[in-house]
Amino acid sequence: MKKVAVLGATGAVGREMIRILEEREFPLASLKPLASAASAGKTIRFRGEEIPVEEAKPEAFAGCDIVLGAAQNPVAMRFAPDIVKAGAVFVDNSSAFRLDPKVPLIVPEINPEDVKWHQGIISNPNCTTIITAVGVNAIHRISPIRNMVVSTYQAASGAGQGGLEELEGQIRALADDAPVSIKYFRYQLACNLIPEIGSPVYEEYTAEEMKLQNEGRKILHAPDMAVSCTCVRVPVMRSHSISATIRLERPLSVEEARAAVAAAPGCRLVDDLAQHRYPMPLDTSDQDLVFVGRIRRDLTDENGLCLFICGDQLRKGAATNTVQIAELL
Amino acid sequence: MKKVAVLGATGAVGREMIRILEEREFPLASLKPLASAASAGKTIRFRGEEIPVEEAKPEAFAGCDIVLGAAQNPVAMRFAPDIVKAGAVFVDNSSAFRLDPKVPLIVPEINPEDVKWHQGIISNPNCTTIITAVGVNAIHRISPIRNMVVSTYQAASGAGQGGLEELEGQIRALADDAPVSIKYFRYQLACNLIPEIGSPVYEEYTAEEMKLQNEGRKILHAPDMAVSCTCVRVPVMRSHSISATIRLERPLSVEEARAAVAAAPGCRLVDDLAQHRYPMPLDTSDQDLVFVGRIRRDLTDENGLCLFICGDQLRKGAATNTVQIAELL
Repeated sequence: MKKVAVLGATGAVGREMIRILEEREFPLASLKPLASAASAGKTIRFRGEEIPVEEAKPEAFAGCDIVLGAAQNPVAMRFAPDIVKAGAVFVDNSSAFRLDPKVPLIVPEINPEDVKWHQGIISNPNCTTIITAVGVNAIHRISPIRNMVVSTYQAASGAGQGGLEELEGQIRALADDAPVSIKYFRYQLACNLIPEIGSPVYEEYTAEEMKLQNEGRKILHAPDMAVSCTCVRVPVMRSHSISATIRLERPLSVEEARAAVAAAPGCRLVDDLAQHRYPMPLDTSDQDLVFVGRIRRDLTDENGLCLFICGDQLRKGAATNTVQIAELL
Repeated sequence: MKKVAVLGATGAVGREMIRILEEREFPLASLKPLASAASAGKTIRFRGEEIPVEEAKPEAFAGCDIVLGAAQNPVAMRFAPDIVKAGAVFVDNSSAFRLDPKVPLIVPEINPEDVKWHQGIISNPNCTTIITAVGVNAIHRISPIRNMVVSTYQAASGAGQGGLEELEGQIRALADDAPVSIKYFRYQLACNLIPEIGSPVYEEYTAEEMKLQNEGRKILHAPDMAVSCTCVRVPVMRSHSISATIRLERPLSVEEARAAVAAAPGCRLVDDLAQHRYPMPLDTSDQDLVFVGRIRRDLTDENGLCLFICGDQLRKGAATNTVQIAELL
């Protein structure tokens, strides 16, 4: 039985983590929701009780075994030393430590063995990266991925609770012929697409676009894998979708790829075009499985395959994966 | 001055064609809107007059110089012999004749010279293909495209007026917490994605996905170009978007590619990530230019470039391109 704190308990991912701790019947001795001073005093419902949210400060971590991090990078970086000093393991969903060579970056279905070498901090990968990696891992085990060309279709809630509410508000405004309010996203998202997620970090690629390559290499143990990624925000509430073209060391038939995906933990093969069965965000919302379909031969490369992948980025892409890492401990 | 008929005048593309004939001040002697018996008797507003819609039948084409086709394949195939026999040129937006070796397939900015060898029928390409081809043509002229990996983000109106109205209705239903009605598309499109456009035709690719390769080869005069395409319907009203990774015969720098696009007819370069400038469907709706941006080096191939392209598929992707072909005559 573990004493668990959730840092950033009132945000979209934090709320989802607490829901998933309850749902998966995590062996908890106690739950401590932590948030900024502004949210302290609110309560969080957990197993039928209202638990007060406490202010996150260095002394709040005393006595904790595990701290699940659902806060932004500056908060994660500020409290990580306190958490480690308190003797807890920090399972962090921010991107602050993901590429640190002393910090394991874990998707439990893919590289659970990397948990062993942690030194107090374990990182949870980027949501799009988790969903894509779970979708392609079984194929990668048979014939390693040399490179990927990826275009994403990312849901509003990937930008947090505020993004979700903004899209809901914009849809109501459009239905009422009222002016659309834009605060959270840079442009109107309802009935539009925004091909910018994250800041430019490498040539003309954004931070979000480079995560798939840089985090993907670490998770899949594929240090030379190259990824060209285009990240696009789409007017969908939950669940990210990924159109991926992967090039393998050796050719793999569509049938072999399908069999591998069908047997892979965390995946569901949904692939029957003639019967109109393929992954869609509405079908994956609010659950943990990553759906994989539209598996086809890549017509531009004999070692290539095309896939369409969907997964709920708040659950498997963030909260569920973090709780699964805690379960490995 | 030409006598022009529009076949399928009451659909989404037909209406747009008539609007564009007016807007571009096409040198018309007369306009004859034709539609099915069910629509005959309706009127179409053109240059301030209400013009009655006539029933499309073989004798309706007598005396016409040009027939603009905005109908589905069976209608185009049924009337094509009558149109040619009447001595008119059939500029057809259906896919019925596009790959016929006796029929030119034209994008006026790319291959206007192919008009010369028509034998009574000229085809207008698929909407996604036109927009993509206009976006990449200037690069292709400098360094030919060997292959492309493409993922699309296609608007509801690409499925016609019914698709557009269904998405509008679904948005109102979501705003009102009412049940969403699904008739036109196979699944709910509002707040969802549907990765199926067209029927399976080649391996696990749909008709829409193969058009980009097969029509693209004919338009760009690139008979060996290979294309792996994934077509996805997105909850956007107008304007298709295309994430394309192109591999060229010889490497081209991002700067050279940008300069080529900036100078290309029919294109606007919108490419400044730091200033949050990139193509978006809301910005291209209701106009003819194809916007191109997010031009980057492909990290998986030294001869590759990535681009994001948007264009209004009802205008440049269909109606405008058809009228432009008629102007070439």
